[in-house]
Amino acid sequence: MPTDHFADTVAAVVTPLRLPGPGHQDPVSAMKIIHSQTHERHHAIAEFNRGAMVDAYESPDRAQRVIQTLRERNIGPVLPPQAFGDAPLLRVHDAGFVRFLRGAYAEWKEAGRPGDALPMAWPIRDLRNDRIPDCLDGRLGHYSYDVSTAITAGTWDAVSEGADIALTTAQEVLQGERVAFGLCRPPGHHAARDYYGGYCYLNNAAIAAQYLRDQGAERVAILDVDYHHGNGTQSIFYDRADVLFASIHGDPATEYPYYLGYADERGRGEGEGYNLNLPLPAGTEWAQWSQALETACEAVTAFAPQYCVVSLGVDTSEDDPISRFRIKREQFPLIGQRIAALGLPTVILMEGGYATGGIGENVAGVLEGFASA
Amino acid sequence: MPTDHFADTVAAVVTPLRLPGPGHQDPVSAMKIIHSQTHERHHAIAEFNRGAMVDAYESPDRAQRVIQTLRERNIGPVLPPQAFGDAPLLRVHDAGFVRFLRGAYAEWKEAGRPGDALPMAWPIRDLRNDRIPDCLDGRLGHYSYDVSTAITAGTWDAVSEGADIALTTAQEVLQGERVAFGLCRPPGHHAARDYYGGYCYLNNAAIAAQYLRDQGAERVAILDVDYHHGNGTQSIFYDRADVLFASIHGDPATEYPYYLGYADERGRGEGEGYNLNLPLPAGTEWAQWSQALETACEAVTAFAPQYCVVSLGVDTSEDDPISRFRIKREQFPLIGQRIAALGLPTVILMEGGYATGGIGENVAGVLEGFASA
Repeated sequence: MPTDHFADTVAAVVTPLRLPGPGHQDPVSAMKIIHSQTHERHHAIAEFNRGAMVDAYESPDRAQRVIQTLRERNIGPVLPPQAFGDAPLLRVHDAGFVRFLRGAYAEWKEAGRPGDALPMAWPIRDLRNDRIPDCLDGRLGHYSYDVSTAITAGTWDAVSEGADIALTTAQEVLQGERVAFGLCRPPGHHAARDYYGGYCYLNNAAIAAQYLRDQGAERVAILDVDYHHGNGTQSIFYDRADVLFASIHGDPATEYPYYLGYADERGRGEGEGYNLNLPLPAGTEWAQWSQALETACEAVTAFAPQYCVVSLGVDTSEDDPISRFRIKREQFPLIGQRIAALGLPTVILMEGGYATGGIGENVAGVLEGFASA
Repeated sequence: MPTDHFADTVAAVVTPLRLPGPGHQDPVSAMKIIHSQTHERHHAIAEFNRGAMVDAYESPDRAQRVIQTLRERNIGPVLPPQAFGDAPLLRVHDAGFVRFLRGAYAEWKEAGRPGDALPMAWPIRDLRNDRIPDCLDGRLGHYSYDVSTAITAGTWDAVSEGADIALTTAQEVLQGERVAFGLCRPPGHHAARDYYGGYCYLNNAAIAAQYLRDQGAERVAILDVDYHHGNGTQSIFYDRADVLFASIHGDPATEYPYYLGYADERGRGEGEGYNLNLPLPAGTEWAQWSQALETACEAVTAFAPQYCVVSLGVDTSEDDPISRFRIKREQFPLIGQRIAALGLPTVILMEGGYATGGIGENVAGVLEGFASA
């Protein structure tokens, strides 16, 4: 057992952790899981990474392994999403951006292009954003910020279903569930109001948080524990005091997304003080990571929200192929336990995690940790 | 012969064009050509274009074919560049950017990466530019705006030599030559103060223009006839009244670089009125293109500069594989002739042109047209 600050704090406020042993089949609690197989339609042929096209890290296998493990571990009933339409997406995303995402692949094919749609140039600095180019390559760059995030034949189906999964998960919690898990894929937290990137297209966590607000919650906290900074989520709520964004992530000075996620980003205008970045160096282990989680949770408690949305990435795992924290499998339940100790109705949404061998175990660990607390 | 507006205008102000016939060996005039073979060290393995890695369009073959044709056509003596050091580069480029360009490939190799250095994410919109990431991938994106522009083992050698070629060409004109041609490769006009892209790293035309200013010229005009907008050159001089930038190019709404080059970009502050963009639609032929050249030349004359720097791209050719104007081989001499009619000491620098079969003929045509005027 860890003997650090976080463990001490948790020990004081929650009941002892009751983890199921191997082969355990009874649910520790009936946590609803929202899932569909539509995500499989989004399957990038390849991504551009470090100078070359490589197999896409963000693969259907990720969600397949998670749902398989959650079923095996009997976490709770698996339910399909309801259809919410475009209206909740447009509460956080630009209408032109959503229209573009929906149609980009068809345009790519109409132009006779092979493979998936990827951009090739971007409007940085004094290049213009106020003139959206007519041509597809110009719009691909306008609406994105990296070259690792392909738009495929099934991307729109998957990402719109992913948003419905997030919304359905929020709906379950609004209707009285203490917690529910939305198995969104692809992830969402890098997507901003009008640009995509980092394998993310629509920001599921932001859509869910805004939906909770629109259904009457005064304040919503978003706690992002993915390895990578949730730059899209931060960007969407940066000027607002009604949604707290707190994130623990690899220091952007050395880790993707590089250009956002520094500690001095505290919000702007009315939003000042409602953005909390806790960047940590590559190599960070549980002792230090859990202290940051404690800091983030204390900020959530101080904010006194009605709901908490968790951007759950398990790419903090020591086994992750593209990330550099060292969280061990047996430590993931402690994350869920600490979040549960917030005592808030909680919407947990899937973000990253690319060590497909352990992704199911790590997600299950967080959910079981939450349910057991 | 074209019978359009431009031809009529030219006919009124210059002597009749005396073009050399095939096999002609006498120089129409001794136009000095500045060249070295150092450019061959920059040879990208591939570029990322429309979703895939493809053979790099910007190849050593381009300059090899140009110099071969210029020698065959006996345009003038071919001279090596002098070394000017970093000081003239730093008059238009950011010191950190220059340092980065010089060292990026070594860093890439130190990181154990195969192939050439290419970026993967970019700081658009509210992503930050005021924090330059520590890591190589973060800096690659910070200092670039596309994924088509590889940094190779020999890139720094080639681009610093290219700047010396531009400076030596300017020096020749300062010392009394009516015109001289700098065979820069890679090209330069897409490179801005602190970012590269579009096959360009250091902005040769901007470096030459600034050098002419620093040597005492009050006003310098840059005339950019490359198919693509010279966004880097515009960006460097956008706030200044001492350097006029006039460009004829494919409409950025449909053509690279997409995010700059629109007609409403007229300069800013003191620079207002000293930036002239003449975007033309894909498919434009000589009749319309030459009218734009006339407009640009009239603006240059009205500016009354002491020198003219020409960004000479011949990717306006009907044969160009990545551009969409329809200038015919026999029309390139008319470009040189009209520029000569400005009556200004002129520094001509090589930019784009990717139809390697005709690049030599088209460049020679422009230079012969100038020399014959």
